[in-house]
Amino acid sequence: MSGAAVNPTPILKDELDIVIPTIRNLDFLEMWRPFFQPYHLIIVQDGDPSKTIKVPEGFDYELYNRNDINRILGPKASCISFKDSACRCFGYMVSKKKYVYTIDDDCFVAKDPSGKDINALEQHIKNLLCPSTPFFFNTLYDPYREGADFVRGYPFSLREGVPTAVSHGLWLNIPDYDAPTQLVKPLERNTRFVDAVMTIPKGTLFPMCGMNLAFNRELIGPAMYFGLMGDGQPIGRYDDMWAGWCTKVICDHLGLGVKTGLPYIFHSKASNPFVNLKKEYKGIYWQEELIPFFQSVSLPKECITVQKCYVELAKQVKAKLGKVDEYFVKLADAMETWIEAWDELNGTGAKSDALPNGPAN
Amino acid sequence: MSGAAVNPTPILKDELDIVIPTIRNLDFLEMWRPFFQPYHLIIVQDGDPSKTIKVPEGFDYELYNRNDINRILGPKASCISFKDSACRCFGYMVSKKKYVYTIDDDCFVAKDPSGKDINALEQHIKNLLCPSTPFFFNTLYDPYREGADFVRGYPFSLREGVPTAVSHGLWLNIPDYDAPTQLVKPLERNTRFVDAVMTIPKGTLFPMCGMNLAFNRELIGPAMYFGLMGDGQPIGRYDDMWAGWCTKVICDHLGLGVKTGLPYIFHSKASNPFVNLKKEYKGIYWQEELIPFFQSVSLPKECITVQKCYVELAKQVKAKLGKVDEYFVKLADAMETWIEAWDELNGTGAKSDALPNGPAN
Repeated sequence: MSGAAVNPTPILKDELDIVIPTIRNLDFLEMWRPFFQPYHLIIVQDGDPSKTIKVPEGFDYELYNRNDINRILGPKASCISFKDSACRCFGYMVSKKKYVYTIDDDCFVAKDPSGKDINALEQHIKNLLCPSTPFFFNTLYDPYREGADFVRGYPFSLREGVPTAVSHGLWLNIPDYDAPTQLVKPLERNTRFVDAVMTIPKGTLFPMCGMNLAFNRELIGPAMYFGLMGDGQPIGRYDDMWAGWCTKVICDHLGLGVKTGLPYIFHSKASNPFVNLKKEYKGIYWQEELIPFFQSVSLPKECITVQKCYVELAKQVKAKLGKVDEYFVKLADAMETWIEAWDELNGTGAKSDALPNGPAN
Repeated sequence: MSGAAVNPTPILKDELDIVIPTIRNLDFLEMWRPFFQPYHLIIVQDGDPSKTIKVPEGFDYELYNRNDINRILGPKASCISFKDSACRCFGYMVSKKKYVYTIDDDCFVAKDPSGKDINALEQHIKNLLCPSTPFFFNTLYDPYREGADFVRGYPFSLREGVPTAVSHGLWLNIPDYDAPTQLVKPLERNTRFVDAVMTIPKGTLFPMCGMNLAFNRELIGPAMYFGLMGDGQPIGRYDDMWAGWCTKVICDHLGLGVKTGLPYIFHSKASNPFVNLKKEYKGIYWQEELIPFFQSVSLPKECITVQKCYVELAKQVKAKLGKVDEYFVKLADAMETWIEAWDELNGTGAKSDALPNGPAN
């Protein structure tokens, strides 16, 4: 299922953008050429906008640097992080496609146990196009996969599943560890290929990593905000986690599915654990209050769009996490700004009458 | 981890019983000899008690037939099913060990992808001896396994985990399908070896299969009642499912863990789908009301032992599922009888002052 076969007609070619945040030349794309070249790329250049990012020949792409972001969003650009890969979510906002795949520029093509190159994007598309089963656990994993099904005792009324909003892929080689774990286990490498895709059950939170991630923009895009990180902010490396917690509670509320497992990419480079520790330490501390918050969040029935859910979540963040640190007041404001900017760019502004507070800037 | 290496000293040799329900000679044990011979077996003979079951030489076992069950339990023997593998739970009750492994007599030793025989029991013991993580999902699966850990974003306060009560193993070859799926896919075989063990999150129900199952009897034994099935009962093939739902809600209430995944056994023989359909059809129908019931069950704080939880659950079954069918009134009574019999045989009778109704027979 995760084989390297390149389809003659790449699936969803005109319905999917690949979003890549970067500060360097994109040589890593050479390795992905057989799989990515048919797709459109959205490159979000972080850091110094005067620097030129080289993109290998033959790729179809648009590139945004900080000047572009400021020009396009005006004062609302404040919601897009700078000097942090959280800036990638700007790419989600300017995409006009139904699906987004985002990947880090230190992620290479992994091999399956038979030695074949894994077409990660193809597997993500499979994951997104077939349903999820968040209400009951299937012990043989993805019941829709070839050779698998629902096991005895799985309620028949739940076998249609629900639409899949998110496909979270994994990493061989360098595992996605926090700084303390990196420091304690500097040599640990992930070599275990687990041949499974599964739905994360309703009501269960998970650590969503942004390194190898696909989602249905139409179903969940506005919740994929990567928060305020990096330059001028007290934390980093919690951008994807924040997006994952927000996304999961909204998916649970709206009856959408989140999958994790295949595909693997090969993560080449461990980031510096000392630098990471500095970025993470407040997050590690705050997280102990964030998780109970997200575990107990309840969204009112009237929240029937992602935008409405997200603005309601922002209100609750401000009210309940504002006490943890002033940062969360700022983050809650940025969450609202993000939705306003999303609606402006996506012509979904009509829905913004759900915004209770008007422009936050 | 799941290799065939036979330890010189089998782990938990004096703390684990293997429970096998059967109606035939136990030739299948020959294949398991390298792994099972050091352990004590409890054989529960179903059907005609005058029949002699042959056990291969060299195994240490005790065997109970229906006459033994009637003699030992007296009128309380009514809670033990007859002509159904649900009778196996009698073995759980008479065991005096801390751990139980139960396996069907049509389950053979499976091979891992490298071709080595899988020591299923050794893997179950590993699963039971290391903690579970029901409160948050770890995307790299069992964080305690060699070469794995908690990923970035996993709350540190949850990394100690909770004690593991149940280890649910899987099946290669014949998958555990219900009769309708067997009929639709008669040739489907499970050939996918998924190299993972994971915790089933708190609040999520799963279909627990009794074919290849281990548990900590001290932690959860009294909840492992396989219900009223087979002779004189309107359903079959829901014995392990019933036990699984009851066990999971009690584990969730008591803060205990349930794992699923490795080890695999090789399931040799598909049962007759036409016979199965007859046994299952009421269960398939009733199940649509059972699952919402178990999903919404709430046990009061005062229920701090498995026995108290189970008796409370029996009360709720009678009150809420009694309306679905008269069968559930009978089942609820049998659940109470089971606890009384358990306490009598295990000298835990003092706890039975929690029983509100006295003997049910």
